[in-house]
Amino acid sequence: MNYSSVTGRLATLGSAKWEVHFTARAMAAAGESILEMTIGEPDIPPDPRLLEQVTRSLNSGRISYASGRCEPVLARALTEKYRKYRPTVTERNFLALPGAQTCLYTVIMAIAEAGDAILVGDPYYATYEGIIRASGAEPIFVPLRPENGFHMKAADLEAVITPKCRAVLINTPHNPTGAVLSAAEIAAIGQVCLRHNLWLISDEVYADMVYEGQFVTPFANPDLAEIVLSIGSVSKSFAAPGLRSGWVAAPEEFVDRCQPLAEAMLFGNQPFIADATAWGIANQLTTGREFGSHCLRRARLVEEALEGCNLLRLHRPEAGMFVLVDIGQTGMTSHNFAMALLQQERVAVMPGSSFGANLEGYLRLSLTTPDEVILEACQRLRNFAGRIRGR
Amino acid sequence: MNYSSVTGRLATLGSAKWEVHFTARAMAAAGESILEMTIGEPDIPPDPRLLEQVTRSLNSGRISYASGRCEPVLARALTEKYRKYRPTVTERNFLALPGAQTCLYTVIMAIAEAGDAILVGDPYYATYEGIIRASGAEPIFVPLRPENGFHMKAADLEAVITPKCRAVLINTPHNPTGAVLSAAEIAAIGQVCLRHNLWLISDEVYADMVYEGQFVTPFANPDLAEIVLSIGSVSKSFAAPGLRSGWVAAPEEFVDRCQPLAEAMLFGNQPFIADATAWGIANQLTTGREFGSHCLRRARLVEEALEGCNLLRLHRPEAGMFVLVDIGQTGMTSHNFAMALLQQERVAVMPGSSFGANLEGYLRLSLTTPDEVILEACQRLRNFAGRIRGR
Repeated sequence: MNYSSVTGRLATLGSAKWEVHFTARAMAAAGESILEMTIGEPDIPPDPRLLEQVTRSLNSGRISYASGRCEPVLARALTEKYRKYRPTVTERNFLALPGAQTCLYTVIMAIAEAGDAILVGDPYYATYEGIIRASGAEPIFVPLRPENGFHMKAADLEAVITPKCRAVLINTPHNPTGAVLSAAEIAAIGQVCLRHNLWLISDEVYADMVYEGQFVTPFANPDLAEIVLSIGSVSKSFAAPGLRSGWVAAPEEFVDRCQPLAEAMLFGNQPFIADATAWGIANQLTTGREFGSHCLRRARLVEEALEGCNLLRLHRPEAGMFVLVDIGQTGMTSHNFAMALLQQERVAVMPGSSFGANLEGYLRLSLTTPDEVILEACQRLRNFAGRIRGR
Repeated sequence: MNYSSVTGRLATLGSAKWEVHFTARAMAAAGESILEMTIGEPDIPPDPRLLEQVTRSLNSGRISYASGRCEPVLARALTEKYRKYRPTVTERNFLALPGAQTCLYTVIMAIAEAGDAILVGDPYYATYEGIIRASGAEPIFVPLRPENGFHMKAADLEAVITPKCRAVLINTPHNPTGAVLSAAEIAAIGQVCLRHNLWLISDEVYADMVYEGQFVTPFANPDLAEIVLSIGSVSKSFAAPGLRSGWVAAPEEFVDRCQPLAEAMLFGNQPFIADATAWGIANQLTTGREFGSHCLRRARLVEEALEGCNLLRLHRPEAGMFVLVDIGQTGMTSHNFAMALLQQERVAVMPGSSFGANLEGYLRLSLTTPDEVILEACQRLRNFAGRIRGR
């Protein structure tokens, strides 16, 4: 039977990136004790009042078909939230979708297709390539350099632009590097976008998890009001990934043009989840900030635990729930290192190469496990590195 | 700024189809009393135990990321349900998605693209054209003839097939006609599909709402096991459209190939909704059947109320929540009739032309309003028809 080309484009993505993780899960399922620091999922519970709101709304009859654009109650809450970034924002500037993944998919489908390209930093979150290729467009990678703290620099962006480019996708705070772009960096990236007629897509799902600096969204830059597509969700900020609740803040014309596609895909979302999301936004839940402070503490634990081991050099993150460890001095590929670490020490971490060619020579460690697991995993990492040094 | 071609293809669909409905809503919002029989939404509540399951699962921590394919508990329930149609079905045959709309979008994206075509009966459910065009494919319409009770006939299908066709989309029970295909009709359609290497997509969301006959799914036909993509949801069967919970039952290879696309779009669904869906399926909730019996009773009310009026001839449905009224004798287009009815009698019904060229000369009346509204609306329809006759 016939399949469309999108199935072929996506078939080869994904599974190879997660080989270490799936191998670890298979070993765990077979009864082995594995310290898993691969994927990141909030390990603090959501605010119980958030779940109460879901139930209350569900039981009040909010289980009919919903708006294909954004439920009014959610649009009002989002307007209030984004007004602090842009005073002129209205309820017409929001499209609600089931999670940031769907937001990115929909936004890119609406602006790119076969023959087009989307600019994205390398390293990048593992699903980005699939989202871009689903539309038929190709990714063009902008190097994010360790000497710049993995921040995207306007000159690096401009150097790789081609006439096929339709948008730049930034992710601030960034997974996996934890980089948080400054207002000046965003302004410089935005000027490049304006010069080249590019949309600026901003994935901001870690906005509440900045450790010590300040989160900045390009949505707040008035020069960029016509080109910024800003994406948020409750997965990290409310520690509720299973709610599948996200949104796009965008120019009204963009939302108008995108809505028929969203409706063709979804026919609206769950109204009771929209209600709970609106409640959480209006009540400024602090779950994400608390989760961020946990992760900062754990990032420091990792730093202390690896201190003095020059084969394992921590890249200090500015935000988020991951740390990177530079293993370049070992001479091993990150995949070989991670697989050997799993086999020999029963510690599962992500190889940097799963997040792009530019993260070869790094490991990504999730900070969403208990402190004692992190400390034990770091000790085993040191043991493993010690044997490499001994060779 | 640039938009992709899909936004253009979808921009002109949709709104015109719903002009009468939106006009009615605007009149109601302005304070007028309108009898609305346009859209269909279950007017009985879901089983309270279903909502309790949502809450129970939510509060038990099922709010993490879920499987991008189908949560195991839901796959088990679906396997049990579909085993009565096909004894060899396994948990690998199911893909869970947020509602039948998303199922159709995903399935068509996976098998068709620009240059392809999808065969679909005319009349057809109003969103089908957008779903098909979103993929880049074109619809090719198979006439559903009133003299055949709007059943799709294999000969009518085969007559319009071109080499571009990739699939036939059937809808049984059918919206808006209420037609329920027989096993023999499905077998004949299936043989055409096999001869022409076409997938057979079957939208079965009204499966529980057959009035007196028997629902038949092509999934039960062993000759068609490699080509049938069967779609179900809880919107009608559990009277819970706001749960956004649907599924595709399909060959394992199809699910394997479709899963990366579903994951790129959604990154999984709500696990607590999957749990409640599984519970409802395992416990064989009868909500949809009860709702169907309400609609049958109301369809008979309409029939009695319009009896003897030869300008308003009821087409007796076999299933679902709508009735069609043949207004061909009036000489008016269905759009003009519906708009004039709204303006003069404050009754809102859907013009048949919103559901395809073949339904010109018909009105679609929703049966999801209280009996007294239906009776009053029918009286006003007769009044309106009486004035036409008088001219």
